[in-house]
Amino acid sequence: MTRSNTNQNSPLTIGVDIGGTKITVLLMNRNARIIDAATRSTDTNASPEKVVQDVAASIRNTFPNYEDTVSSAGLGVAGTIDRKRGIVQSAPNLGWNDVPLASRLSAKLQLPVHIANDVDAATYGEWKHGAGQGVDDLIGIFLGTGIGTGVITGGRLLESENGSAAELGHVPVIHEGRSCTCGYRGCVEAYAGGWALGEIARERVREHPENGRTMVDIAGSVDQITARTVSEALEQGDDLARELVQESGKILGTWATGMVNAFHPKQIVIGGSVGEGIPVLGTILEEELRKGAFDEFATTVDVVESRLGNQAVAVGAAALSLFTRQSTS
Amino acid sequence: MTRSNTNQNSPLTIGVDIGGTKITVLLMNRNARIIDAATRSTDTNASPEKVVQDVAASIRNTFPNYEDTVSSAGLGVAGTIDRKRGIVQSAPNLGWNDVPLASRLSAKLQLPVHIANDVDAATYGEWKHGAGQGVDDLIGIFLGTGIGTGVITGGRLLESENGSAAELGHVPVIHEGRSCTCGYRGCVEAYAGGWALGEIARERVREHPENGRTMVDIAGSVDQITARTVSEALEQGDDLARELVQESGKILGTWATGMVNAFHPKQIVIGGSVGEGIPVLGTILEEELRKGAFDEFATTVDVVESRLGNQAVAVGAAALSLFTRQSTS
Repeated sequence: MTRSNTNQNSPLTIGVDIGGTKITVLLMNRNARIIDAATRSTDTNASPEKVVQDVAASIRNTFPNYEDTVSSAGLGVAGTIDRKRGIVQSAPNLGWNDVPLASRLSAKLQLPVHIANDVDAATYGEWKHGAGQGVDDLIGIFLGTGIGTGVITGGRLLESENGSAAELGHVPVIHEGRSCTCGYRGCVEAYAGGWALGEIARERVREHPENGRTMVDIAGSVDQITARTVSEALEQGDDLARELVQESGKILGTWATGMVNAFHPKQIVIGGSVGEGIPVLGTILEEELRKGAFDEFATTVDVVESRLGNQAVAVGAAALSLFTRQSTS
Repeated sequence: MTRSNTNQNSPLTIGVDIGGTKITVLLMNRNARIIDAATRSTDTNASPEKVVQDVAASIRNTFPNYEDTVSSAGLGVAGTIDRKRGIVQSAPNLGWNDVPLASRLSAKLQLPVHIANDVDAATYGEWKHGAGQGVDDLIGIFLGTGIGTGVITGGRLLESENGSAAELGHVPVIHEGRSCTCGYRGCVEAYAGGWALGEIARERVREHPENGRTMVDIAGSVDQITARTVSEALEQGDDLARELVQESGKILGTWATGMVNAFHPKQIVIGGSVGEGIPVLGTILEEELRKGAFDEFATTVDVVESRLGNQAVAVGAAALSLFTRQSTS
């Protein structure tokens, strides 16, 4: 049920990013000018009821008069979202399945609520209000623990019939390659997602401890090496870190070459914590795709950094709530 | 310039498939009932003028009264097409670059003429009038000498801003793998396109002549082994042929897994001469993607054979000429 609301023409909307460890809420106008924002911690593995309460409390505390001024709220959630019906089908980070989040929050907030996959929201945000304004064919690549992607094609968010996101991170680049969290093998995420970069680094350090001294010093032990360790070792000029990043970057480039041939984007927007922490990954990706993809696309695609940074999900979710109808029955 | 024409509401349209060695023309009504069709040979490497003449002659000979009854003509051409402007940007099979084919034919035929990439046309044909009717998210896979693909997403043909096709055949499946005709490495076409299947077979027979006797017998010599040889050897129960087809099929399956994760199609339509000659390739592809892709898509996607067969390009091109505006200035 979509809540009736008397502020439908209000220029203000709320964007929410529900992560595994924190909730970000922001209030913005139709030009995506952010009027106020706040972040609070949440439990990983919180129940849907708890998260609904936390989100509502965050909004009430941060924007006490929201009911008088806000026309809608949009939420981005990591997981498989049935965007048409406002249901979180599965959110492994939160441990949820089939949660009708939009209707529950809508009842609590007395506002129309729209939910979307977080990476779709971030891509939409970059398109409408960030690096991709005016570009109707773009791919958003968010290199974090995993590799999240969103695709705008022909001025439209690419999604399945029920609104699931384009999972380009689970396109294989090495037939019968490394095991991926999705259950398949050889996905690009299994070579260049943050978890994979850490896993590969730990393997390599165990094989050749003499090359891993810098990383072990940084992390404390081999077992504690993560993508962040690789990033820090790279900054210290460590050879193994450079080698690992080169390898992952080239695989990202092979993958991006295929994605450019498939989608012919005019722009690729790169963001995410690993993308920002190890920016050379984006540089290598770009070098590779310019060599690899069909000339007419390799020479015309722009590769740019995310402009909205860690607010991309909330901004995009807010924008989606303005531009998209969603039934929350 | 779009030709003025008094038959705009006529139910009849002409579809043309310009291949490297032959031209197919057909006359169909709006339900894609084919009233008449003809095929004539053409030169490979014919000049654009010669092909325009040949197409016009084919149409005049086959449908003498077309000017009184036909509302438009659509052509499918193998190559990079600027569909919006009706220009063949490059057609390697024909040796063409930047040929304003739509306007030239339009002037010759005194009809509105629309041109499209042949595989996009075939995919559109299968969607509107073939195996994919009513399915708004599908991928057409045409396994021939190369691997041609077309994508319908959200009830719309996926194409670049100027109308170029989705080149999923040039998505790499093996990082730093076999050299491809596109200049890059590891593309799925370099493992499962007809040319690659022949190339790999020749390599394998040279390495192990004792396993290649059946294929050499069929082809006459190692150098003459092609994908067709593999197909014939497979029918004779040859072990090497079975091994090669298994390998290519599994690589196709890895690739298809990625494409299902990326596009979430409801249907995959498989056609093309190699797809029809070695149908087990489609079977293996389907087995692999059902194991590999995200459950919610792997279990719901239909994998079906092309219904329009070798008329798909002409039927789709005709349908595109009815449903799409194209300026042919």
